[in-house]
Amino acid sequence: MLCVALLGSGRMAHVYGPKVNAHPGLRLEAVYNPRLESAQAATERYGGRATSDLDGVLGDPAVDAVIVATPTDTHVDYVVRAAAAGKAIFCEKPLDLSLDRVDSCLAALDTHPVPFMLGFNRRFDPDIAALAAAVCAGEIGRPTMLMSTSREPAPPPIAYVRSSGGYFVDATIHDIDLMCWIAGERPVSVLAAGSCVYDPAIGEAGDFDLAMTTLSMPSGALAHINNARSCAYGFDQRVEVFGDAGLLQTVNHRDDPLLRWTARTTEARAPLKHFFLERYDASFSHALDEFFKAVTEERTPSVTATDGRAALAIALACQESARTGRAITPVY
Amino acid sequence: MLCVALLGSGRMAHVYGPKVNAHPGLRLEAVYNPRLESAQAATERYGGRATSDLDGVLGDPAVDAVIVATPTDTHVDYVVRAAAAGKAIFCEKPLDLSLDRVDSCLAALDTHPVPFMLGFNRRFDPDIAALAAAVCAGEIGRPTMLMSTSREPAPPPIAYVRSSGGYFVDATIHDIDLMCWIAGERPVSVLAAGSCVYDPAIGEAGDFDLAMTTLSMPSGALAHINNARSCAYGFDQRVEVFGDAGLLQTVNHRDDPLLRWTARTTEARAPLKHFFLERYDASFSHALDEFFKAVTEERTPSVTATDGRAALAIALACQESARTGRAITPVY
Amino acid sequence: MLCVALLGSGRMAHVYGPKVNAHPGLRLEAVYNPRLESAQAATERYGGRATSDLDGVLGDPAVDAVIVATPTDTHVDYVVRAAAAGKAIFCEKPLDLSLDRVDSCLAALDTHPVPFMLGFNRRFDPDIAALAAAVCAGEIGRPTMLMSTSREPAPPPIAYVRSSGGYFVDATIHDIDLMCWIAGERPVSVLAAGSCVYDPAIGEAGDFDLAMTTLSMPSGALAHINNARSCAYGFDQRVEVFGDAGLLQTVNHRDDPLLRWTARTTEARAPLKHFFLERYDASFSHALDEFFKAVTEERTPSVTATDGRAALAIALACQESARTGRAITPVY
Amino acid sequence: MLCVALLGSGRMAHVYGPKVNAHPGLRLEAVYNPRLESAQAATERYGGRATSDLDGVLGDPAVDAVIVATPTDTHVDYVVRAAAAGKAIFCEKPLDLSLDRVDSCLAALDTHPVPFMLGFNRRFDPDIAALAAAVCAGEIGRPTMLMSTSREPAPPPIAYVRSSGGYFVDATIHDIDLMCWIAGERPVSVLAAGSCVYDPAIGEAGDFDLAMTTLSMPSGALAHINNARSCAYGFDQRVEVFGDAGLLQTVNHRDDPLLRWTARTTEARAPLKHFFLERYDASFSHALDEFFKAVTEERTPSVTATDGRAALAIALACQESARTGRAITPVY
Repeated sequence: MLCVALLGSGRMAHVYGPKVNAHPGLRLEAVYNPRLESAQAATERYGGRATSDLDGVLGDPAVDAVIVATPTDTHVDYVVRAAAAGKAIFCEKPLDLSLDRVDSCLAALDTHPVPFMLGFNRRFDPDIAALAAAVCAGEIGRPTMLMSTSREPAPPPIAYVRSSGGYFVDATIHDIDLMCWIAGERPVSVLAAGSCVYDPAIGEAGDFDLAMTTLSMPSGALAHINNARSCAYGFDQRVEVFGDAGLLQTVNHRDDPLLRWTARTTEARAPLKHFFLERYDASFSHALDEFFKAVTEERTPSVTATDGRAALAIALACQESARTGRAITPVY
Repeated sequence: MLCVALLGSGRMAHVYGPKVNAHPGLRLEAVYNPRLESAQAATERYGGRATSDLDGVLGDPAVDAVIVATPTDTHVDYVVRAAAAGKAIFCEKPLDLSLDRVDSCLAALDTHPVPFMLGFNRRFDPDIAALAAAVCAGEIGRPTMLMSTSREPAPPPIAYVRSSGGYFVDATIHDIDLMCWIAGERPVSVLAAGSCVYDPAIGEAGDFDLAMTTLSMPSGALAHINNARSCAYGFDQRVEVFGDAGLLQTVNHRDDPLLRWTARTTEARAPLKHFFLERYDASFSHALDEFFKAVTEERTPSVTATDGRAALAIALACQESARTGRAITPVY
Repeated sequence: MLCVALLGSGRMAHVYGPKVNAHPGLRLEAVYNPRLESAQAATERYGGRATSDLDGVLGDPAVDAVIVATPTDTHVDYVVRAAAAGKAIFCEKPLDLSLDRVDSCLAALDTHPVPFMLGFNRRFDPDIAALAAAVCAGEIGRPTMLMSTSREPAPPPIAYVRSSGGYFVDATIHDIDLMCWIAGERPVSVLAAGSCVYDPAIGEAGDFDLAMTTLSMPSGALAHINNARSCAYGFDQRVEVFGDAGLLQTVNHRDDPLLRWTARTTEARAPLKHFFLERYDASFSHALDEFFKAVTEERTPSVTATDGRAALAIALACQESARTGRAITPVY
Repeated sequence: MLCVALLGSGRMAHVYGPKVNAHPGLRLEAVYNPRLESAQAATERYGGRATSDLDGVLGDPAVDAVIVATPTDTHVDYVVRAAAAGKAIFCEKPLDLSLDRVDSCLAALDTHPVPFMLGFNRRFDPDIAALAAAVCAGEIGRPTMLMSTSREPAPPPIAYVRSSGGYFVDATIHDIDLMCWIAGERPVSVLAAGSCVYDPAIGEAGDFDLAMTTLSMPSGALAHINNARSCAYGFDQRVEVFGDAGLLQTVNHRDDPLLRWTARTTEARAPLKHFFLERYDASFSHALDEFFKAVTEERTPSVTATDGRAALAIALACQESARTGRAITPVY
């Protein structure tokens, strides 16, 4: 049994809380929040003790591991302290929005080499995992073109946008991580274009709500990502990988299982009702399970802090490319 | 060059006229109709000479072959006379609605063994032909269940229904011929059920507008046919064949090539706008071509009068089954 | 909390055991089996006390409800005794293979009107439930043709076949219940055909391994069911309902989410790996939940003993029809 | 009747010859080739007189129009001379590989304003035309992301590559024209990446066999194009347009109409056997028909020389972007 302290009790904590409870090998020992009443609201639902005493949690020998589910700008601090305390760490993505701070975090993990896993949960989505496994098994030969379509139902509040680090860092980073992971390589240069067509406030904040990205891989493979902050028919999530010997595609999930034929349309399916918490629900569970297994099997978790740094470096390069109209080489 | 006289100048003659013209090996020599002006309306569009003199046409040595496209109840008379005159014969289906009259026709064709082909055009539809070829090539092993779905956009005029010979003889007969042809065998017994749910006038005329048929084949294979005289989304035509080693399916043709995703439906396609003349347009051409090739290659055309008799016998057995609630053995 | 005793500890008990545990409102109090060690094997996995004392279980006031998951030929006995003991009853389908015994069971339930639900779990499959709901909501107008395709990967052992009551009673009965439930009516007559094409031993046992069934409904609607005891590509489960205003279809579930394009095939999907326990896993859970809700809300569960009797009467009529070649009117 | 002289008797001339013959309003008057025997080979198949005398053809008052189907580097010369001779001109794409020469051609067409149409035939493909019409009709609101996938079965001979003007000018130019035409606007800047992964000889020749392109439109819309010179499953041609209100997609054409279910794959379709002459066969006919209609209705054909110049300018900008890693603004 791996005893876990949940750092944070906001939205993502409420994703992980039930999943810790549902996992046979994990136990929720504590929930930490500087605002005790927020931690208590979580422990009332998921068990464990509520605390606003971080040192207490990190010094508690009953706590084996922490899940960092706090606001992004606090991730590095908590990771550094948890590492120093010798805890295994599962950290919600992204590590941080600044490469410098990420580097200081990597240094701390070097000094205190605790098990660390970054929550790029989409790798653990069963569809995407099957796609990656098929590519890895050589089903389509060498992959040469990778495509990721990721479109959200509606723009987030402008306040969210302002603190998000920008569209590439906030959203495209998921697709970037998937493309690199499936391709088995990282881009030598990126090209990106963005525009603002849905919410002028997003543009006024200097950000984009529509983006296209091209990653040029060392092998010659090319990856395309398209992102939109609005999508009339729901949360559109599709990946395809084209290789020497064929093509693999994932398809959208369906809330409604039926095909409908009427006088207006035939073979029609319902729109995609879910958003990311529903669409990727299984992937959060499987990511936690990977963390559990890696810690208990004493191996390195499959998503490293370096993966997180690389994805951030690429996303920042995309942002710069979109602003300057130049190919940018990410600094790994 | 095979010189053809078209007997009849009604609806089906206007299907065959352009197809004779478009065929490089066929030439339209004459169009016969007892009402000369009707024949003239056809020759003005498709060429050839118009005539109301049947003996003249059948005695004309320049005429190699006739296409019988007259009302059903005249088919046998024309076939018998054309056979006696030594002409090759392409006869629109069905041969007749009476097994006795069909038998007298078969006898005449025995006496005058001219090339004869019955126009079961759907066998020549490229999709269905590909399905049959794949079955024949053993792609799915031994076929054990065959399914044909055939639904029309809207009920025909009641006058048509009254002279049609009944729903099984008029419509199901196409599916019957396909099922037997693809299975390579004819049923030892049939079960059928019919009802009238769309147009009460059809029921009052003693006919059905909804029907389901089961054919029990000698091999143990079973075939299912469903027919409806009304279909909100158009002319639905699907065939599937299930065998020891797999399943083959044809899909509906599309007037509109697009997939549409909106806030109401996703991956939707347009309804099926066409009816049988459009859907099976190619099959009429290919059927004529098979006739041409068989005659010029001096081999028996692939759809025989016996095939027509068998399909009629089965359709009549279905009709009797639907009326009596008993399994009926067709009399071949 | 509803305290449950599980009668039986064989295959189906191992389906219900975990589902009782996973349900927040159900508690497994006891597992009964005349062979105590079999009951113990179950309680070791799912909790509760093991017992071979039926009177003890039925007399235990801590037991609110029983789940009858014993061999089919014992269902009626246990139901009658549990009813007399005043327990709510969830009984795995079928009630029995004999209409007489089912009638005696119905009489007992009349005398002791405890909550009773029959486990026709497929009604609770989310896809089929969505289909039925859409039909019920009038999406396709009046349903006129219903089709159910149900094909199993491979024939069961011959011993199973011999005690199954025959293919229609064992397998088709699921489709029969669905067709009647979705149509909202029961057939006035049935036509069925069967053959034995996969395992000659099944034929020698007087049974079929291939069957097609037609149900004629009072409204004029017709339902088609096709069943095969062997299917090269897996467990094929498809339902479609055709109505005045359109068509609704369910599609097969996929273990493998990918579309594959290669030099051999395009847009290909993997075969259907699962069998009924995997395919209908959710439906067993939802059926139990319906039972729980009905009992706690003090309403009649949605699948009644009368539904079970009707499905059996129809299945037996199909069997007779397949043997006699006559339309048979089920005796309700 | 529009009398046509075909300039050139190579591959593309053999595409247009049969289509001129099949068109009811066009007549093939002459075929010109400086090598008379090549022209004769064409006239033997399609009729008309063969000639090696260009002045004779252009001076012949019986010739109303010319189809320029000669090698690309001669297009401008023939267009300029035909314009001076007052002939209507249908010119196979591209006009030329040099913007300067295209500009001199535009100047000549300004001086001699004869009807001129460039053969961007894919606009006339029924699927793509339906897509463009649906976008134009506002079905998906304002288009914001356009995607074109165009992958060829196998790389062309290296000699072809060397004289092709480069991958963007040779292949991507088709997608560029479609994206601009459907979007109703032309990019203010382009980003492109290319690599050589299939045939090293292509890379040695300084060209690419894999390319991804992003077009940034004035409205903020973004277009993505991906091209590959090799594709294991055939000639992959897909377009999708994403707008405020939904998504429209075209799908690949099928030589084989069947869906196949076996123990290896389910719902599989055959690979895409055709290449562009088969896939876009109808589009060549419809393009000629547009030319015919525009000339006889005395209106400007729908694909202008300016469209051709713009597509070339964009393709050249893509090429420069792929080589420099910078966003390039096409010079219109």
